Amino acid sequence: MFKINDNYLRLQGSYLFSTVAKKTNAFMEKNPDRKVIRLGIGDVTQPLAPVIIDTLHKAVEEMGHAETFRGYAPDLGYEFLRKAIAENDYRSRGCEITADEIFVSDGAKSDSGNIQEIFSTDNTIAVCDPVYTVYLDTNVMAGRTGEFDTAAGCFKNVIYMPCLAENNFVPELPGQVPDMIYLCFPNNPTGAAITKERLQEWVDYANKNGSVIIYDAAYEAYITEEDVPHSIYECKGARTCAIELHSFSKNAGFTGLRLGYTVVPKDLMCGDVSLHSLWARRHGTKFNGAPYIVQRAGEAVYSEEGKKQLQEQVAYYQKNAKYIFEHLKSAGYEVYGGVNAPYIWLKAPNGMTSWEFFDFLLEKANVVGTPGSGFGKCGENYFRLTAFGSFENTVEAIKRIEAL
Amino acid sequence: MFKINDNYLRLQGSYLFSTVAKKTNAFMEKNPDRKVIRLGIGDVTQPLAPVIIDTLHKAVEEMGHAETFRGYAPDLGYEFLRKAIAENDYRSRGCEITADEIFVSDGAKSDSGNIQEIFSTDNTIAVCDPVYTVYLDTNVMAGRTGEFDTAAGCFKNVIYMPCLAENNFVPELPGQVPDMIYLCFPNNPTGAAITKERLQEWVDYANKNGSVIIYDAAYEAYITEEDVPHSIYECKGARTCAIELHSFSKNAGFTGLRLGYTVVPKDLMCGDVSLHSLWARRHGTKFNGAPYIVQRAGEAVYSEEGKKQLQEQVAYYQKNAKYIFEHLKSAGYEVYGGVNAPYIWLKAPNGMTSWEFFDFLLEKANVVGTPGSGFGKCGENYFRLTAFGSFENTVEAIKRIEAL
Repeated sequence: MFKINDNYLRLQGSYLFSTVAKKTNAFMEKNPDRKVIRLGIGDVTQPLAPVIIDTLHKAVEEMGHAETFRGYAPDLGYEFLRKAIAENDYRSRGCEITADEIFVSDGAKSDSGNIQEIFSTDNTIAVCDPVYTVYLDTNVMAGRTGEFDTAAGCFKNVIYMPCLAENNFVPELPGQVPDMIYLCFPNNPTGAAITKERLQEWVDYANKNGSVIIYDAAYEAYITEEDVPHSIYECKGARTCAIELHSFSKNAGFTGLRLGYTVVPKDLMCGDVSLHSLWARRHGTKFNGAPYIVQRAGEAVYSEEGKKQLQEQVAYYQKNAKYIFEHLKSAGYEVYGGVNAPYIWLKAPNGMTSWEFFDFLLEKANVVGTPGSGFGKCGENYFRLTAFGSFENTVEAIKRIEAL
Repeated sequence: MFKINDNYLRLQGSYLFSTVAKKTNAFMEKNPDRKVIRLGIGDVTQPLAPVIIDTLHKAVEEMGHAETFRGYAPDLGYEFLRKAIAENDYRSRGCEITADEIFVSDGAKSDSGNIQEIFSTDNTIAVCDPVYTVYLDTNVMAGRTGEFDTAAGCFKNVIYMPCLAENNFVPELPGQVPDMIYLCFPNNPTGAAITKERLQEWVDYANKNGSVIIYDAAYEAYITEEDVPHSIYECKGARTCAIELHSFSKNAGFTGLRLGYTVVPKDLMCGDVSLHSLWARRHGTKFNGAPYIVQRAGEAVYSEEGKKQLQEQVAYYQKNAKYIFEHLKSAGYEVYGGVNAPYIWLKAPNGMTSWEFFDFLLEKANVVGTPGSGFGKCGENYFRLTAFGSFENTVEAIKRIEAL
């Protein structure tokens, strides 16, 4: 009789956003007259920029003619896209990353879930608490986390790194050395950023101790402050200890198009095995390329026109973030994030738990946010709002919250 | 110090098609004057059908306006697509599969590689020999196959099911009962089909012994014979033992668009755990949906216009298959497949090994095929040609082979 992967049975609850969606839908069915505003899931709302739309149409047209039709994409992604990424996201920032160190994928969620596969299941992982749940859940599925300790509220073999107001939501270097360290800056869910100086400490720590850093830079387009690095490769020595994940979802609105990439430098070794070769094998065996038309759209993100239009799009969401941050602060809320990130992280008022505040906001203000406790124990009593709504909805939602 | 997943070090050679591509490119660089014809990799060459192109344009247009813009897709895929699949691929054939048992993905390659994750690494797998390498390699990566026995030329914990001319390339029921059985019909690489009666024996065997069948139906659109089932769910009892994988690559030319789906019936249980719930969790955690525009294109495959245009497209490739089959047979080759599949499987002449014949064909006829031994030990001395070239190129390639 076949057996299942019973690590799956250790997963805690269902995927956070499914639960949020279910609760929201139940409320809306009961209250069809209310206009619910969703500032929960990090999904964008602005349409794709005109240059992206034009590029998609052109690429679709190519697919309709035998001479320009494209079948399977190259394993790593099309060179036109990898070159544009290397030039614009790395070399222009002084980072030595070449096009053949970039692996194009269908999005950072897939990559952040899949990357752990090339590591031993004996490795110990360290994650921030609160954390983007995909890092943790995919390690639970792989059996790397051990059992869940119900009394302690955490997995036995995981090093949790508390991110709290006291440390500006940037974790301390762990005393017990982890093998794999997940970092995400600007952070989801807290919206916190890390300075280049602090990130350099992490790189040095990893190199000294033989840890690998999995660095999620999905929100780098929202950075406004000068001393905040856009890539971990701005730090010296990162090529020997860090993998970086990128998304086109937040800088270019590709949540429904699906495109991302992962950088695995060729200097990143485990003994005489290069992680680049392992990831290349994984990518070539279990994935068959992002759609040609979407890769062309990705290339357009780096065109002059694309950069201009997308800066405006990001600025639109940044304006929302600023609005939420400042108005909730004025209203007496304890608020964080929002400056270098599209997320606002706030303390639930009056000692409410995260889910109590979720229900309260949904019922009283008809606003959907994300309960901080869904991201980990240290997220309890916190709450995440996103800046990805329309400006009008954002203003209305905040006015409703101010009126509570 | 972090450790790698050293199961990766057990992988044999590099991914077959990368090696084929490297050899071909080296030949072309040396011989820039030769016109090389590729009948190797199973990649289509005909442009997307007009109705698909129109649908893509319309969906792209929707993405350019806030009112019709779509962000993250639902976890399982859009309902409009899942309903079309359930109706056309299942209910119209008398199979009881509902829309919520269908998981839309970015292609059957990803699914066929990922599906093993929900099973215990202690399970024993059975694969056909020769086999589509993704089934085996992804199980090597997961540690399910054990070590490679160099002397025997096979992995220690794998049940290989020989597919030879003697058994019409349809394997016998294994004596040692496997936990997981990979079957692909119409078969890649041999082009062999299985009758409904024979497939029913497999379903009965799996139900009796507690095995799960992972059934790859990627090539079902090429079936021409009446007693060959399009889906394993045409067999009684398949809902309690089988998962089915489907592709849009071969029936609709989506190799460069990326779309597929997997069916996990809700009756498929391991004790009190439903595999449907495990796959739903995996899908929701490590994947973020196929692009909206591609899912709309998938829906168009099932429109009246789509069915008509794609029948013509499939007929085009079927004509190629018939041409290759009949002409090579007349030329004295021992040929198989081609009737219910886009693949022709032939015996290399004069006792040549598969790679010897590959080099011979590349050098003497400038035709690229795929060495049968790349698919497994029992593929040695065989060779695969695909029907996915243009008719003109196919005719020219075969004429060159006939002239050798």
